Amino acid sequence: MAFMDSYMKKLDCLSFKGLYNSDFFLTWEKTDAELKAVFTAADALQCLRKENISAKIFDSGLAVSLFRDNSTRTRFSFASACNMLGLEIQDLDEGKSQISHGETIRETANMISFMADVIGIRDDMYIGRGNSYMHQVADAAEGGYRDGILQQRPTLINLQCDIDHPTQSMADMLHIIHEFGGIENLRGKKIAMTWAYSPSYGKPLSVPQGIVGLMTRMGMNVVLAHPEGYEIMPDVEKTARKNADLSNGSFSKTNSMEEAFRNADIVYPKSWAPFSAMEKRTDLYGAGDTDGIRQLEKELLQENALHKTWTCSEKMMSLTKSGKALYMHCLPADISGVSCSEGEVEAGIFDRYRIQLYNQAGFKPYIIAAMILLSKTAEPQRLLHRLETCAVKRVKL
Amino acid sequence: MAFMDSYMKKLDCLSFKGLYNSDFFLTWEKTDAELKAVFTAADALQCLRKENISAKIFDSGLAVSLFRDNSTRTRFSFASACNMLGLEIQDLDEGKSQISHGETIRETANMISFMADVIGIRDDMYIGRGNSYMHQVADAAEGGYRDGILQQRPTLINLQCDIDHPTQSMADMLHIIHEFGGIENLRGKKIAMTWAYSPSYGKPLSVPQGIVGLMTRMGMNVVLAHPEGYEIMPDVEKTARKNADLSNGSFSKTNSMEEAFRNADIVYPKSWAPFSAMEKRTDLYGAGDTDGIRQLEKELLQENALHKTWTCSEKMMSLTKSGKALYMHCLPADISGVSCSEGEVEAGIFDRYRIQLYNQAGFKPYIIAAMILLSKTAEPQRLLHRLETCAVKRVKL
Amino acid sequence: MAFMDSYMKKLDCLSFKGLYNSDFFLTWEKTDAELKAVFTAADALQCLRKENISAKIFDSGLAVSLFRDNSTRTRFSFASACNMLGLEIQDLDEGKSQISHGETIRETANMISFMADVIGIRDDMYIGRGNSYMHQVADAAEGGYRDGILQQRPTLINLQCDIDHPTQSMADMLHIIHEFGGIENLRGKKIAMTWAYSPSYGKPLSVPQGIVGLMTRMGMNVVLAHPEGYEIMPDVEKTARKNADLSNGSFSKTNSMEEAFRNADIVYPKSWAPFSAMEKRTDLYGAGDTDGIRQLEKELLQENALHKTWTCSEKMMSLTKSGKALYMHCLPADISGVSCSEGEVEAGIFDRYRIQLYNQAGFKPYIIAAMILLSKTAEPQRLLHRLETCAVKRVKL
Repeated sequence: MAFMDSYMKKLDCLSFKGLYNSDFFLTWEKTDAELKAVFTAADALQCLRKENISAKIFDSGLAVSLFRDNSTRTRFSFASACNMLGLEIQDLDEGKSQISHGETIRETANMISFMADVIGIRDDMYIGRGNSYMHQVADAAEGGYRDGILQQRPTLINLQCDIDHPTQSMADMLHIIHEFGGIENLRGKKIAMTWAYSPSYGKPLSVPQGIVGLMTRMGMNVVLAHPEGYEIMPDVEKTARKNADLSNGSFSKTNSMEEAFRNADIVYPKSWAPFSAMEKRTDLYGAGDTDGIRQLEKELLQENALHKTWTCSEKMMSLTKSGKALYMHCLPADISGVSCSEGEVEAGIFDRYRIQLYNQAGFKPYIIAAMILLSKTAEPQRLLHRLETCAVKRVKL
Repeated sequence: MAFMDSYMKKLDCLSFKGLYNSDFFLTWEKTDAELKAVFTAADALQCLRKENISAKIFDSGLAVSLFRDNSTRTRFSFASACNMLGLEIQDLDEGKSQISHGETIRETANMISFMADVIGIRDDMYIGRGNSYMHQVADAAEGGYRDGILQQRPTLINLQCDIDHPTQSMADMLHIIHEFGGIENLRGKKIAMTWAYSPSYGKPLSVPQGIVGLMTRMGMNVVLAHPEGYEIMPDVEKTARKNADLSNGSFSKTNSMEEAFRNADIVYPKSWAPFSAMEKRTDLYGAGDTDGIRQLEKELLQENALHKTWTCSEKMMSLTKSGKALYMHCLPADISGVSCSEGEVEAGIFDRYRIQLYNQAGFKPYIIAAMILLSKTAEPQRLLHRLETCAVKRVKL
Repeated sequence: MAFMDSYMKKLDCLSFKGLYNSDFFLTWEKTDAELKAVFTAADALQCLRKENISAKIFDSGLAVSLFRDNSTRTRFSFASACNMLGLEIQDLDEGKSQISHGETIRETANMISFMADVIGIRDDMYIGRGNSYMHQVADAAEGGYRDGILQQRPTLINLQCDIDHPTQSMADMLHIIHEFGGIENLRGKKIAMTWAYSPSYGKPLSVPQGIVGLMTRMGMNVVLAHPEGYEIMPDVEKTARKNADLSNGSFSKTNSMEEAFRNADIVYPKSWAPFSAMEKRTDLYGAGDTDGIRQLEKELLQENALHKTWTCSEKMMSLTKSGKALYMHCLPADISGVSCSEGEVEAGIFDRYRIQLYNQAGFKPYIIAAMILLSKTAEPQRLLHRLETCAVKRVKL
């Protein structure tokens, strides 16, 4: 018994008041202690689940989801997290709504929130749009609550924007915390966030940005590698550099995959589109220039094809620490010979790390649930204690 | 404590047996006492929610929704209401079902209702169809229950038909009850339900019809204003006239927006399509006459454009009682300079009333929940008392 | 009181350990005792529902549904069953997911299952595909559980594949058990599973196959009738023959509807596509041969039209036992003069049996819930006893 004690003690040592009643947009807007509180709460929730103890803190209530891009993993993670806490998913399908005809964001945000305790949004397609849209929704909900329109303040969870993918990067970090036996063991470890070739194009920047923005927080040596021209947002690089300085880690860049892999403890090879191309695409979409989009797509695919050697091969892996770096991916990966002829990673490597990769993904529901829980209560220790003491069974057989 | 006492006392004074085990199609099929019971139950449910007390009267059960037209507000209101009471939404997406190939309405109604406690339908596009379709579904469900096919009788809630939009008009009235400090204070107040210009066309008639059909019940002076040719259904006008006679209010018509606004306590300017044009459109759709539909649309837009002066301007507002009539709209409104260049209302006016407008919309979930609750129990007083006494927390932190 | 006693006693006499922790693919993979346990649990659940007692054994948890073909009845039955047990439906819409780009089935299965207690799949369109796909999903989930990726093992329920439609055939059999007053009374009864004309084509084989595969289990005399060329899968015929031998029933085939109907206690006339044509269609889809598909469709419709006399007419019904055989259909039926000009059954016959047909369909939610319950607990007797004793009300009024 008293499974929750260790988590409660950890939380006692952290100052995370800033999470209460707040939204989750970017990891670098949170303090280290706040991030650690999220990891701790996520672990506590997973422990409760393993002990078949219900974490239902809502008797009823809605969790609104809005996906402006396809999603399987994040959609199911969000649904799982909300269900675990007792909220029912209500999807806002913009195609079936009246939003089209000129309704303001402020209005929509209020209209969907009368009984919403959480709003989760994925909006990652257009540079300069997604994060800004989420802020408009959150501001509107905050305003609605302040004005007495809403009886509760819905918590906004960024399920991937143009800048960050915090539920992904936080799940990723919780994974390596578990793999390396504690957050304190990450100090000095080398992680290579590298571009990798994929036959598709235009993959969001939010994963590499999220990784360099977060992993620089814990004293790690973060290397960002990509072919020339595949830069990420300059602002995020600046953030990563600042983070590294503060945490006594490091952040460096290279145009050589080999250099990034050399002696790395962790590798994260993944395709993305150049920031400048994504900006261009956003403008073309804005102008409705279909020909321009097609032309850009063609150019990007041609450019990509010049960098097919950027792949996570056995040879590349052999450069890493003892040849045994932890391979990570947000999934789905473009696996050579499986999902495409030439892709981000060799099938043998993917298979070797498959269980770990699936475990990595499995942290996301708990990360999301922890974000919600810490936004809703200022005293999670008391709450965890009560959940354990009441011990309502999740499955009653 | 004893928050529920005042609501219970109000209900004690009302005779509303007709609501028990019945559906909600049109407000004018209900008695004044029944409508008052719905308002009272809605207020009671809102009070419980404010006190963080669960109103979950269903441990499990489905609420089936069928939207044959786009919807955001009503969709989320229905979902919120059902979730609040403990029912899970199951959407009937006719595109993903087998309904297409000649299945009878009776059969579908039974097949979706084995575990359905509520069915909510929006079917507002075609004159003479929506309300009739809802009745067929309700009759089939009633029959299925009588024949022992269904173990419970699902309650049908009209979420907007060709004739009425009762969850809207009831929420609207609850809003003005709150704004004017009590239903008894509505007597003698002047409300202008007026047509307003919008660059779109073919908006349903159910809102203006619902408003004149309901607001004439409580001794108000209801004025229906529109340009010549924009008549609503004659039957609903007849109903409004009859209601006004019975309630010692009045119902009048005018082709002048100014006349309607003059000295009004409440204004409700909103676009709609002429009844005769909607009838014509229904026939054209029936005949699959795409050219005819396009032609009709063109004519309607041209006709609309002749009446751009029908807009809720500051000048128009200055005609109202002390220049301060309550501005109402079912949302989303066509706001000049915001959602269109010229529309139903000036941006400044909309902004001035924005919080009130959002509150107006916020009553809908409670109205729907109250309709369901009063259909399910003949003794809501006892139920409200029990909910308050048990005081299960909605959010347990 | 003690409603559950008779069901508990019935279960005491049955050995059904094989159901625990297992999936439900095909009825003929289960023992007689296991099938009887499902019927008994379904009856027990229906009894609880009638007594307004909650059967919610899950406090939270997801039930993932994946429909690769349209569905109303099965979709709502699955949703009803899961809701009854306390699980929230999360639909996997492949169009809105990232599954398209080469993700493996194993990966998807794990990604959707982190909090899934049940997965229900309909995949009935292509011969040799559906059942095999379901096995891949179930194997992946089993593997994920074994590898510690998933904290629970989701139960897979076949909601119709290319071979069997077990939730349909089991609901059908529970219906006739009730109609004939007990499973022991089915021995020696004649059931005619016959092809019938329909103006549509390409209806799945899984219903007739499911019926002959299941009904031969209980000592019934099963006759499969169809025009020459409308053969079902040879393997299923073999299964039916073997079942009949073991149960001391019989299985025979004929190309005469009259012969099948003669002296039948039960008739199940229904259209289906020839097995060989379905195989051909699967190949054409595989090759993306649109012209070929169109050509095949034309041929099949022409072939169908040669057999319009295969219809459930009053004349045909008069051949059955006392002219009063039980008419069955999985619905929706192609009713002559109602849903088509000439179809599977005359309107008068359908109407006469309508209530029974709807009741037949009404067993499906309970069959699905029973399948889930028996997969989740090895001691359903104890569980049913507890549910009755706790007696949590489903509707608390």
